[in-house]
Amino acid sequence: MTSKVNGFAKRDVAIVGVGIAPSGEQWDKGLRELTIEAGFAAAADAGVRGKDIDLILVGNMSAGTFVGQEHVAALVADFLGLNPTSAVRVEAACASGGVAFKQGCLAIASGLYDLVVVGGVEKMTDVQGKWATSVLSGAMDFEWEAYFGATFPGIYALMARRYMYEYGLTREQLAAVAVKNHYHGSFNPLAHFRNKITVDQVLNSSLIADPLRLFDCSPISDGAACVILTPAENARKYTDTPILVDACVQASDTLTLFERRDICTLDATVEASREAYRLTKISPKDIDVAEVHDCFTIAEILALEDLGFCKKGEAGTLYDEGQLYVGGSLPVNTDGGLKASGHPVGATGVKQIVELVKQLRGEVESGRQVKGAEQALAQNVGGSGATAVVTLLRREN
Amino acid sequence: MTSKVNGFAKRDVAIVGVGIAPSGEQWDKGLRELTIEAGFAAAADAGVRGKDIDLILVGNMSAGTFVGQEHVAALVADFLGLNPTSAVRVEAACASGGVAFKQGCLAIASGLYDLVVVGGVEKMTDVQGKWATSVLSGAMDFEWEAYFGATFPGIYALMARRYMYEYGLTREQLAAVAVKNHYHGSFNPLAHFRNKITVDQVLNSSLIADPLRLFDCSPISDGAACVILTPAENARKYTDTPILVDACVQASDTLTLFERRDICTLDATVEASREAYRLTKISPKDIDVAEVHDCFTIAEILALEDLGFCKKGEAGTLYDEGQLYVGGSLPVNTDGGLKASGHPVGATGVKQIVELVKQLRGEVESGRQVKGAEQALAQNVGGSGATAVVTLLRREN
Repeated sequence: MTSKVNGFAKRDVAIVGVGIAPSGEQWDKGLRELTIEAGFAAAADAGVRGKDIDLILVGNMSAGTFVGQEHVAALVADFLGLNPTSAVRVEAACASGGVAFKQGCLAIASGLYDLVVVGGVEKMTDVQGKWATSVLSGAMDFEWEAYFGATFPGIYALMARRYMYEYGLTREQLAAVAVKNHYHGSFNPLAHFRNKITVDQVLNSSLIADPLRLFDCSPISDGAACVILTPAENARKYTDTPILVDACVQASDTLTLFERRDICTLDATVEASREAYRLTKISPKDIDVAEVHDCFTIAEILALEDLGFCKKGEAGTLYDEGQLYVGGSLPVNTDGGLKASGHPVGATGVKQIVELVKQLRGEVESGRQVKGAEQALAQNVGGSGATAVVTLLRREN
Repeated sequence: MTSKVNGFAKRDVAIVGVGIAPSGEQWDKGLRELTIEAGFAAAADAGVRGKDIDLILVGNMSAGTFVGQEHVAALVADFLGLNPTSAVRVEAACASGGVAFKQGCLAIASGLYDLVVVGGVEKMTDVQGKWATSVLSGAMDFEWEAYFGATFPGIYALMARRYMYEYGLTREQLAAVAVKNHYHGSFNPLAHFRNKITVDQVLNSSLIADPLRLFDCSPISDGAACVILTPAENARKYTDTPILVDACVQASDTLTLFERRDICTLDATVEASREAYRLTKISPKDIDVAEVHDCFTIAEILALEDLGFCKKGEAGTLYDEGQLYVGGSLPVNTDGGLKASGHPVGATGVKQIVELVKQLRGEVESGRQVKGAEQALAQNVGGSGATAVVTLLRREN
């Protein structure tokens, strides 16, 4: 029942160019400047010309509310000089980028398009008349959750509290997620935060929604990312190191947390990852590097279990053992994750893909490069789990 | 350069079910109730079961700003009981429905999906903290147009004034667009307005943006529409009267009006329609019935010319001759168009398709049924023309 890109694929999909704009508070850049920066970087990386592009997909969550601008994909086509190429904005809350990427893979796999640009962008720091947290509440069920005062820190705090009760996760283990991601982010020149932090700093940061503290929460970031897709058989026209998309699967779940069978499991992640593994015969132990959706520290804990990297209730122990650092058995969020690299919501899903492509190419800064990485996984989540996208990438040898 | 569905199509696309919620001020229905009403009607029409659906696409422009709800497609999946099927919201301003439909056609044509639901929805009458006109300004270039006070009535007024100057269109001819569409709407039980109006009433209605008056403008409507797509070879499992999608083509242009080579032509419509005609060998004179994007009366005038139904500057004379009424040589906007049927912006592109499917099936109310219609055209526009989608539909004999 989950949607498949490669289930009946006509042809394989390759990524031949990536680009990214630095994440953070970019007071001198608007939506279009961020997009142009990432888009031109990706085009230069792939060596493509605008006139060869068949289709533009743009992931964006809330430009209408953040900066008054809808019709975002047409804006991108316009400012990248790509008219009259058709341009489609895709929205699935914080999974907007992942879903745009999936639609881009579909376009190539279908045989109907030969060169597709997938961008993701969010401008979050110039909000007028609303708090960013209020805008982001549009990702939950407005009438049944946000209207009654729920916020995303509050929703994830419920999940964290229940998980700690059920499985004995300690507050220190939760903090270790943020400590690891800030450590990785310290090597990433494009990250929102590059400062290392300690468990004590997390535990002493402001309380946001018990048990979550400020350093458990990803920041409000401006940012953009872009990838360029072609059929695998054409990829070497553009690059010597094509990265193949083995699978990209999306699944849905209830918007509301209270309707889930278990608030400590994201069934959409479970569904999407199981289908991705089934389609490819790849298993979690084959993955060399992963980007997962750590919008809050608890989200990374749940992701590791929902993706099958460990058994239910055991993710905390992976932090005790340091296995999730670069150099460990499964480096996770090597760019700093949403926590340190930043979370420009509509860009995040594409930003994860850019990081993994660079990892598989062996192009990232030393300190966070996973040596010899061949197989990678990305997990992008919308809301509290109503949408999940799981992508498997591989270096073509 | 325009995107093609059927340019290299793997297989033909058919519409096997349609559903619609009445347009208008629906104070007792929210976003989800409208969607459910249209979705269940389409499912019943096609006789499909939820578990057979492979993919959900939802056109929606501004639910985030109108009612605080993003993540609209996941909401639809949830409330139609379709989890974990993947659900994708598509946004392209007032062309959101048309672009969602195009993406749905692509999904079927690709061979990757066998049963796709395409919905469109907008809830516009419950806006908090902003005027609807301000929300809709998100469809233009916010920084270069809306920020300086431009509104859509103002933008289209510029086009109307210039067109009247260039081509001698009279104020009465412009009014005749609204008179015709209200006449057609009077036969449509689902229309926002069912009252007939006269040229004098249009000329005496409140001035909105010179030369446009209140009755030149489409209303702020709540509404939803839904279609169900399958490969043509499967269509007769669901219906005795499949409607084939011969082409569905999207094109982009500048967001800003001032950057266009000619503000009396929508180049995106020209590009998309020329490509649709080229792909299908269908010409404008083959069309039996059309739905065009009359967000303002001048928009229908431009559409007739941009789509090739008459020469530049001559559309006004078609109204003098009454050719665009049911019974004339080319009935246009037989449901009342955006003007009388209503303009729930994200739903409009899908609503047009629903009307044409019903026309081709011979199912609409007498008074507005085009007898023996076999070939139909829809044109859906985003903003002042930055996005256009042109669709050609045909009754399978």
